[in-house]
Parts: sequence; C-alpha cells; structure tokens
Amino acid sequence: MALALALNLQNTELTSDEIAKLAEMRKVCTRRILLATSLASSGHPGGSLSTLDMLLVTYGCIRHNPQDSQWQGRDRVVMSIGHVSPGVYSVLAENGYFSEKDFLTGFRRAGSGFPGHVERIVPGVEWDTGNLGQGLSTAVGMAQAFKMKGLEQKVICYMGDGEQQKGQIAEAMRYANKYKLNNLIVIVDRNHVQICGTTEEIMDIDVAGLFAVSGWNVLQLEDGHDTNKFFQTFRKAYLGQVEKSDKPTMIEAHTVMGKGVSFMENLCKYHGSPLTQEQLTVALKEVGLENDFDKWAELRQAPVDTGTKVKNVVRYPAIMAGEPITYDHKTDCRSAYGNALHSLAQANNVGGDMKIAGISCDLEGSVKMGAFHKHSPTAYFEAGIQEHHAASMGAAISREEVVCFFSTFGVFAVSEVYNQNRISDINETNFKVVATHCGLDVGEDGPTHQGIDYIGLMRNYFRFNVYLPADPNQTDRVIRTAAAQPGNVFVGMGRSKMDMVLAEDGTPFFGGDYCFTPGRGDWVRTGKAGTLIAYGAVTPNVMAAWQGLRDEGLEVGVLLMASVVPVDRAAIIEAVNRGPVLTVEDHHVDTGLGAIVATIIADNGLAATFKRLGVTRYGASGKPADLYAAQGLDSAGISKAFKEML
Amino acid sequence: MALALALNLQNTELTSDEIAKLAEMRKVCTRRILLATSLASSGHPGGSLSTLDMLLVTYGCIRHNPQDSQWQGRDRVVMSIGHVSPGVYSVLAENGYFSEKDFLTGFRRAGSGFPGHVERIVPGVEWDTGNLGQGLSTAVGMAQAFKMKGLEQKVICYMGDGEQQKGQIAEAMRYANKYKLNNLIVIVDRNHVQICGTTEEIMDIDVAGLFAVSGWNVLQLEDGHDTNKFFQTFRKAYLGQVEKSDKPTMIEAHTVMGKGVSFMENLCKYHGSPLTQEQLTVALKEVGLENDFDKWAELRQAPVDTGTKVKNVVRYPAIMAGEPITYDHKTDCRSAYGNALHSLAQANNVGGDMKIAGISCDLEGSVKMGAFHKHSPTAYFEAGIQEHHAASMGAAISREEVVCFFSTFGVFAVSEVYNQNRISDINETNFKVVATHCGLDVGEDGPTHQGIDYIGLMRNYFRFNVYLPADPNQTDRVIRTAAAQPGNVFVGMGRSKMDMVLAEDGTPFFGGDYCFTPGRGDWVRTGKAGTLIAYGAVTPNVMAAWQGLRDEGLEVGVLLMASVVPVDRAAIIEAVNRGPVLTVEDHHVDTGLGAIVATIIADNGLAATFKRLGVTRYGASGKPADLYAAQGLDSAGISKAFKEML
Repeated sequence: MALALALNLQNTELTSDEIAKLAEMRKVCTRRILLATSLASSGHPGGSLSTLDMLLVTYGCIRHNPQDSQWQGRDRVVMSIGHVSPGVYSVLAENGYFSEKDFLTGFRRAGSGFPGHVERIVPGVEWDTGNLGQGLSTAVGMAQAFKMKGLEQKVICYMGDGEQQKGQIAEAMRYANKYKLNNLIVIVDRNHVQICGTTEEIMDIDVAGLFAVSGWNVLQLEDGHDTNKFFQTFRKAYLGQVEKSDKPTMIEAHTVMGKGVSFMENLCKYHGSPLTQEQLTVALKEVGLENDFDKWAELRQAPVDTGTKVKNVVRYPAIMAGEPITYDHKTDCRSAYGNALHSLAQANNVGGDMKIAGISCDLEGSVKMGAFHKHSPTAYFEAGIQEHHAASMGAAISREEVVCFFSTFGVFAVSEVYNQNRISDINETNFKVVATHCGLDVGEDGPTHQGIDYIGLMRNYFRFNVYLPADPNQTDRVIRTAAAQPGNVFVGMGRSKMDMVLAEDGTPFFGGDYCFTPGRGDWVRTGKAGTLIAYGAVTPNVMAAWQGLRDEGLEVGVLLMASVVPVDRAAIIEAVNRGPVLTVEDHHVDTGLGAIVATIIADNGLAATFKRLGVTRYGASGKPADLYAAQGLDSAGISKAFKEML
Repeated sequence: MALALALNLQNTELTSDEIAKLAEMRKVCTRRILLATSLASSGHPGGSLSTLDMLLVTYGCIRHNPQDSQWQGRDRVVMSIGHVSPGVYSVLAENGYFSEKDFLTGFRRAGSGFPGHVERIVPGVEWDTGNLGQGLSTAVGMAQAFKMKGLEQKVICYMGDGEQQKGQIAEAMRYANKYKLNNLIVIVDRNHVQICGTTEEIMDIDVAGLFAVSGWNVLQLEDGHDTNKFFQTFRKAYLGQVEKSDKPTMIEAHTVMGKGVSFMENLCKYHGSPLTQEQLTVALKEVGLENDFDKWAELRQAPVDTGTKVKNVVRYPAIMAGEPITYDHKTDCRSAYGNALHSLAQANNVGGDMKIAGISCDLEGSVKMGAFHKHSPTAYFEAGIQEHHAASMGAAISREEVVCFFSTFGVFAVSEVYNQNRISDINETNFKVVATHCGLDVGEDGPTHQGIDYIGLMRNYFRFNVYLPADPNQTDRVIRTAAAQPGNVFVGMGRSKMDMVLAEDGTPFFGGDYCFTPGRGDWVRTGKAGTLIAYGAVTPNVMAAWQGLRDEGLEVGVLLMASVVPVDRAAIIEAVNRGPVLTVEDHHVDTGLGAIVATIIADNGLAATFKRLGVTRYGASGKPADLYAAQGLDSAGISKAFKEML
C-alpha cells in the first residue's frame, strides 16, 4: 500500500514534517480543483477547497488501498456532498488511485470516468451521491452492516452544512443513535455558505444542537483547515476516545468556502461557479503556481478516455432458496411473504453469519416480519416512521454482501421514497423492496394509503425487477427468487386474504413444483375467445369472471403476469393474436400493466382488440370488494368489459 | 353560531360548569369512538381517546362555524394524525357539523362521507391527511398564507408523537421559525405509544428538544386530559402569551393512549384495533353507558348515504395573464419562465394584495425567480434545502386563494416529493410545480440530477395537468395559462439555451398571438412521409432532423405536444393515419410521451408504424449535446430512427 501520506494514529499529533507535507499536498490539490472546474466550465470549486485539508488528513488516517480500491477491509468514505468531486478526485489522485491527467482531461466529459458528482466508476469512491440529505443514511447502512457482521471497519461521512436542512438527516441521526453505531464518524463542513446565501439567511440551523439532541457525540473544531487540529479531533473520534463511546460522533468543523484563494473566500458564488481563465491565473499565482490551463484545454480536445472507469464488484452472498411452501387454504400474500422470509432466514442466517437482513418502519406485524425478527434479531432493524432513511440505509446495507429486505405499505415503500430508491437504483444495490399493502385492496384506510402507482413508479428505474404475485403460493416462490437473485427487486401485493389460484384440475396452480421465472407469464387458462391479463389482488375476481364467461359459453384464456419487469412480450403478442385482450389491475389505469401491454401492441404494429381496466379515480374508504365494484374491477365488471369488446 | 360549548378566552380558566360539560361531552364522544370502530371492524380508537379532551376544548376556543364549515374567517385545524378520525368526527358531531347517525352509519363504508382517515368531504375537516409527517407543513402553509394576506386567523395542528420521527417535520419546524409564524399552534399528543411499541422502543425522540432547538416556544402540559389545564395552556398559545411572541408554539401534551377505558390504556394494540362486541359492552359499562351496537349494526345494513359529503369550495383568485412576451433570440425556457412570473406579479400582486406566491429551495437564481422575489418580496418564500416541506406547504398556501408556484430542479420538484404532490393532488389544490432542470439536458451534474421521469411520475395523479413547452415562447404562454387556470399544474423544461421554434415563414411559431390550449397539440410542420412527435428540450434536434429529412426529399410532419395531460388524442390518431410515427423525448423511453402515444394507438386498435426514442439508460456527466448523441436523441439519431421505419 503506497499512500501519499500515512499518518500514525498512535501519535497524538502530527509532526512538523507531516504538516509541511500536507501543506504541499493542499497546494497541488488546490491547483487541480481550480483547473478541473475551469476546464469543464462548470463544477463546484468552493466547497472542494473548504473540505480539502480534512480530506487529505482523513485519507492519511483511514484503512484503504489505492492499488485495490475494492479491498474488503477498507474503511468507507461516503461523500454526502457529492458535488465536491473536484476535491475528492484531487485527493484520490494524490493518493495514487489514478493519474492527475486522467482526472483533468476527463472531468465532466460525457463517457469519461470523472463525473460532476462523485460516482463509483471513480476508483476510491464508494457511492454515487449528489441529492443532498441521503448520504448519512447511506453511511449508517454501511456502519450497520459492519456491526451486524462483527467487522471492525469505520465509516466516515462528509456532509455540508446547508445540507443539514434536509429532514432525512434527522431520521438518520436518530437511527444511528438507537443502534449505537459508534463505528460512524460524520464530518460537517461548516462553512456557512450555500448556493443562494449564508445558511443563516437561507434557513438557520443549529447543527451541533440537532446532533446533540439525537444523542451523538459532538466535537467542535474551530478551524477545519488546521491539519494538526483536525488530526487530533478525527483521531479521537476514530479511536472512540469520546464521551459516549457507544455512540456515533459528529465533528462540526468550521471552515471557509473557497479557502486559500483570497477573492473566493466566503462567497456563495463559488459554490457552483468555476473561475475564468484570468481569475485562474490570479488564483494560481496566489498559491504560488503557474497557470497551465491551455495545455490541459488542448489535451481535452482528444476523444474522451472511457477506459479509466472501475466496475464496482458487488459480492452477492450465496443464498439458499429453502423449501417452497404450498398453501391450499385462504390466506394473504403478506403471510406467505413472512413465512418465506422466515424460511430464508432459517436456511441462510446460520451460526451468527447473517446473510439476510430485514427492515420495517413501525409496521412489523402488518408486514409479517415477526417470525424473521424472532429468528434473526441481530439482522432485523426497526427504523421507526422514517421511511426516507430506511430506504436509503437498506440499500447501503445490501452493498455489503447482505440481502436486505425492506417492507412497509405501498405508499411508503414506493411513493414516499421514490427518489431514495432511484439513487439506490443508480448505485446498483441488492435491495429487495416488498410492499405488503398495495392498491385499493388496502381498503378502509382510504386514498392516502392506497398505493396505485407501484408499476407506474418502479418502471422509471432501469435496474429494478418488478414482481407482482397472484396468490400466496406464487408469493412464496417470488420471494425466494428475489432473495437468491442479485440486484434490486420490487415485490408488490395486496392486503386481503384470498383463495389460491387453481389449475383446471383443482390443484394449486402455483404450488408444488411451480417455478417462478422472471420475464415469463403464466397461462393459467387457455381459451380461444380472448384473454384476460392480470396480476395481484384482482386475480380472484379475474378467475371468477373466467368462470362466468365460461358458463356463458365463452372460453377465454387467463394470462397472469407476476413478472412485469422484465415482461413476457411473446406471451402478450400471443394473446393479441388469439383475440380480444383485456388487462385488469388494481393500479392506475394509465400507468400499469395496461400501459405495458399497449406499448408492446403498438411497438409491434399490431391492430388489437384491446381494453384496459384499472383504477380511474382515487379510491374511497371502504371494503376492498366495494371499492373494486365501484371501479368495475369485480368479476361482473370484468365480464362486462370483456363482452363489450366482442 | 351554535357551538356545543363556547369557551371564553378572556377567562384564565374554565368554570366548574364548563368542566362538567366537557366531561359529559367526553362520555358521549367516547361511546361514538368505540362504537364507530367496532361497527367498522377497523379504525383507530386508541389515539382518538388520547386526543379527545384537547379536541373538545380546542373547538370550544377557536373561531369556527358548524353552519358554514367553509366560512372564510374560521381558524384552521389540521389533523396531521388523520387516523384519529373517530375522535375528530365525534367532536365535530358534538359541535353540530353533522349528525351522530350519519357518522355511525357511514364510518369506513365505501361511498359514505366518513372515511377512515380525515378528508375534506367531512364538514369541518380542512385537509385529507393520513401519511404521517406532512400535516405540519400543511399547517405552516396555511399560516404563511394568512401572514401574507394580513389575516388574523390561527392555525392549529394536531400531531402524534410517533410521527415526530418523520424528517419532514424538522424541515417544517425550521421554516415556521424562520418566517415567524406565531399564528401557528402545534399540539403534540404525547402518549408514548405507536403501532409496534412505545416511542422509546421504536425510535426514541426528544420532542421538546427538537422544537426548542428550532426556535419554537415549547409549553409542557403534564396531563392532556385535564381540560382546565389544557385550556389554560392553549389559551396562552392562542393569545400569544408566550416567551417569544413572534414565534410559533408547540404544546407537548402528555396523554394516555386509550384513555378512559381501563383495559385499553397504554396498549399499542389499540392504536389500530377496534374492540370486539364483548369488549365494547365492558368498555361502555365502565364509561356508564349501554351498548347499542346491534341497533347501529342493523342501520348499517341500509345502503350507504352518499349525500352527507361536502364539496369543498376553493376560491380561486382572478388572475390577469398579462401581456405575452415573444423571444426571437436564443435563450432558455427558465428565463422565459422567470420573466412570465415577473410579469404575472406585476399584473396581479398590486397594492399589497398578493395573489401569486413563489417558493424555491436554495435555487432562486437557477430557477429564475429573482425578478419575482424583487417585485413581491412578501410573496416569495425561500424554504432552504427542504423540498418535502416546501412542496406540502406550497400546496396548502394555494388553497387559501393564492396561486402558488414552486420551482426547483426536476429531480427535486418531481422525484423527491412525489408523495407530497400526491397528497396535494388528493387535496385538489391550486399548486403550480415548475421544474426548470429536466432530463439529460441538465448535463454535467450527472444522473443523480437528471430527472427523466417527470411524465412517468406525474401521470399517476388524477388532477395534475402536465405541460412541457417546446421553447421559451411557448413557455411564456404555458406559464400564463397555468397561472390563470384553477387546479394543479406541472410545467417541465430543460436547462439549456435554445433557438425558437420557427414557422416555415421564419417567424417564431409560438410567438405573437399563439395561444396555448391544454389538450391541443401543435402541428408546426405538416408532411405526408410521416410524423415526428416531441416536446421540450429535444425540439431543436427534432427541427434539425426535419430539415435533414426534407433535404433528403422526405417531407415529414412535426407535432409538438406541450400538453401531455390532457393529451390531444385526435392529433395522434391523425398522425398515425398519415404514416410512420416517431416519438422523441428527453425522458425514460418507456414511461413518457412514447408510452402515451402507444396507449392511444392500442386503445384505438390501430396498426401503426411506430417507434419510440427516449432515454434508455442513466445519463452520464457531460454536455447535453454529447448525452443526446450517446442515446440517439441528436438530429442524426432521430433521422436514422425515422428512416429505419420506412
């Protein structure tokens, strides 16, 4: 391990040589920060200069390996302030993760390995950040995973002070306190400047007060540019030499935005604006360096080097899917989920080695995580009514060789945390979001609790598979598949108890040896008169409509699509070729399965006899059967709609 | 105004008669709460009993009119804990808003006027709530609107203690402190019980500490069931007799979940579970009443009475659209937005009477709200980096006869606050969400900042119109239409400067007298070889592709769809009937305009030659032109895709 500067934490302060070396490194990095942003004509020099000294010392103290950025034994650094990428890349270059040339020629160019906000394609970066307020939850997730696995690594999270305004941070603070994550160190870059003014002008915050009221250790650092003082403070936090040694620590480091360039200091303008070439010359002169902008500008004329990117290797634990359970009596999908999760825990969380984690938000009973909790108490995390934090945290846990299940109602697991899940999707996590209460089937709790947008939302990601089982048997098999399969998965289900889908011979269609295959629809009935395509909680109504139509002499097919992303295009085309197609779903009529089928029809230039049934207005508060009837989703409504197509 | 009990705030405490009367009212309401939930076999009796005494006193103190629930002079009560509906309905019935019979026979039945979480269809309810954590922001919005208009009304917000875990509340606290909303009183029902356990077990919170650190007055009330003590405390808050008279006040009222029924007290089970009939008999006996469950159960056999619902009348201010501006030089749509907003302020915010408000989140310059801010400083609100709060608050402002514009980047205005906007949609607000940085056009800030889901998300609502102007001229007209039109509107645009769309005669197509009409597409070119359908930031590339195709002898039409919801179905069908159709958009390829067009094609049984261009993977960090080229959205890619259909 060849680090630019390895600082010994046994020493209580830096040597004068180390201090001098750090000052020299600051000079080199200042140049890189200013050059990179001016070359790109965009970016964030101010905050980069404000965190620079602390970052240099941090990388001198922590366990990391520039030759192997994926080394499992490393400490994790999460940059919640993803926009200070010029500072981060400068320091990583200084530590030998990549060359200065790669950084300066690639910064903010499409296809290069050096994007505007830090991303994992840069060697040494742990997490793609940029949307403020989520980074602490990410760091908490990593720290929680280390605790769960009994690992010694630390997690260091750099945050801004303007960022402290985001409410999600308050959630993360509380969680870290509850779970005693003393392996977590937060450094708040307290420069008092945000985009439109000072933090006092924009939205005043008592940073230390907020952390303190949430039970954290708070260390004050008067000057975040004094490398020796920062070392002394950081060292205490790192070694756990703090008042409450079982609690996380926040260092409030007072710094100067634009530090080191006199005309930039304390100006909010330089949060997000680079220097002109003239200003750059003046600034570099002040630092004692020449301006070689032109040389680099010329180098940037060459095509982008796309080869510097690292492919983050996510280790996925080997998961035993366990023995499927077949139900033959009425039950709810969420109980089947709870049983499957328990069975997965029995098969995989063995001898203290926890491979599967579970998170809920004050709904353990409703989402049926009780048996899992009881079996694997050290792998179950109750996050309170803090869904934003829980979603971000869970995804981060899942990057640390853990399969993480997150369960709550559809409106909270999908609608409320859409943007948290989006960032997790960008980060290619192994997160399993299971929403147990979707659709009008939520019933009496009314429209604020009826999530009718789970497909409409999840389809905007690129890396989430979306599964919607038709009954408890299929739920069991879908959950086992989701657990064993790397990557993000969403599973949605209704709330009510339901009958099993039966094959024509009266046996459970999805029981026994049925194998759930992503991207494959299930023809549970075939028929020449047309096809009903559906999934989820309306399935019993669809099966009843099938029976009613058959009784009237209409032999229709029933195609159940538990896998919506990826979807079985061939089966849909087959259905269209057979005759009229009616989609039925407990979902907004314009954004769910109906829209997916419509797109496949149009993409293939087919002239179809086609109709979509779904939710056409916000539901009322009442029994699901009444709500379905009111929107034509009962068996009578389904039969009627189908016959209208003939 | 015939109130059940009008308490005189001139008195410093209650009379013994008043105390006795309140005790009698509690008895009556306890019965209603227990009966209603047992009759519905669902609902939340515990918290209802916990807030009951305070609610009774509150309605005795505030300005309201049961004969005219929409009376403009009323104080506003926002129930952030929407699940305590049985308590609220019981108290409103006691105050004469409706009959006990209507409530007990209708509660939680589909189509009735008495839903499971409080909704505005119930006379006396101000806001549909249920998703915890948003109610304080709503109350802040109403209080802010009153301040802006110089009105004296107060806003009272009831919150739970478990709810305090939601981060959005921290944002709302800070905002209320910054803007000195001393017309706002929060009552936290501190019963220490949430669904899965005590607040200490689930996620410990220092309620008083959090409000205090955010600058609020904090009043402690040892026993929230002591009506006289609550009166004394509430009275002080209401009359502003608090330490910091320019700041909002929180009353932390210590209460007992399930208060008044010995076997229910302090049990989390009764947060969300009703009593069985046997338990009900025991409970009512303890209160000193008979159980007439059977009588009511029988009455509930009759069809639901759908006639008790009130239609909330939202007064919409008359808005002058002002004089449209025509641009003939390259500029960005966001500047056109800023200019239009300024022009609207000049026309409507006159003589201190503010009809148009604006909110931003530390991005005033980027979203071009500076001129509006300068013109109407008392109607511009800087909410800090607190989008969840800002979105909820803005929608609430818009219910108080104010047109409220909320602007930030697409990822924050749409993706981050999807669920806040959903609740606003349910509440039929007049909220104008304008996202100035949508799509890959955001450029160098990279994928975390590139919102490519704005149609995919907004289409899951039922009451948001969605407008996506093609250039600055159309932006100007769209913004004026949005301002003058009641209801929720989303307007999305790219970031970059662009050329105006020109008619074939070289004049600005959307300039001069062009009138934007919701639901109507614009044929900016007609041609027999097929049609390009597009909107927004890719328009210049589409126009260049049109030119290129023409140069090759292919005369195609260009149909621009600024109005995506509602959409011009006739124009799309016309396009399909003319020949090949290619949709082009800076949006996820599966969930935007392409999906809408596909659905119209499939719904109409058309066999189309059809292709969709859009974003097929997360964008990189780079110049928009490079990002477009990488995903085939440049003019070459568009031409190529079109020709491949021939």
